[in-house]
Amino acid sequence: MNKKEFVEVLSKKTKLSKRNCELFLNEFKNCVLEVCGKGQSVAIRDFGKFTLTERKPRKFLNPQTKRFYIRPAKKVVAFKGYKNFAEFVR
Amino acid sequence: MNKKEFVEVLSKKTKLSKRNCELFLNEFKNCVLEVCGKGQSVAIRDFGKFTLTERKPRKFLNPQTKRFYIRPAKKVVAFKGYKNFAEFVR
Repeated sequence: MNKKEFVEVLSKKTKLSKRNCELFLNEFKNCVLEVCGKGQSVAIRDFGKFTLTERKPRKFLNPQTKRFYIRPAKKVVAFKGYKNFAEFVR
Repeated sequence: MNKKEFVEVLSKKTKLSKRNCELFLNEFKNCVLEVCGKGQSVAIRDFGKFTLTERKPRKFLNPQTKRFYIRPAKKVVAFKGYKNFAEFVR
C-alpha cells in the first residue's frame, strides 16, 4: 500500500479531509526524522519506538570490476514494535 | 521522548491543536496495525515501509527453574527506513 492509499484509509478513519491527512503524515515523518536526528528516540505507547542506529562500514565486492569497495558507516532510523503491537496483529 | 512530548512537537509543526494531533497519531497507529494485520505493507515515500514479519518459535532456558521453554512464533511489525531517510538524519 503506498502513501496515497494509506492517506485514504487514514482519511476514512479520522473523518478528516485527505489534504489534512497528508499534511499530517508529512509532518509526522519530518518530526520523527528531526527528533531522531537530534539523537533522541520517539516512543509511542502500544505502538513502538523509533531510534537512530548506526550501521557499521562494510566491505563489498563489485563482481563486474572485481574490486572491493567500502560502504561507509551510515545512520538509519530503526523501529521496534512493542509486545501489545504484536498481539494486536496476530 | 514519549508520546506526550512528541504530540507537542507535532502540534507546533502542524499548528493544529494537541488534541487533534493526538487523535491523528492514534489513528495512524491503528491504521498501520490494521493494514499490516491484513498482510499488506505500508510504504511511505522518503520515510520507510512497515511490514508484518514472523519471528520463528525459539527455545529458551529459565535459569531459575533450569527448564527449557518454547516461545511460540509471533508476528511483529518491522520497519525499514529508506535511503533518503538515512541521508536526512546523517
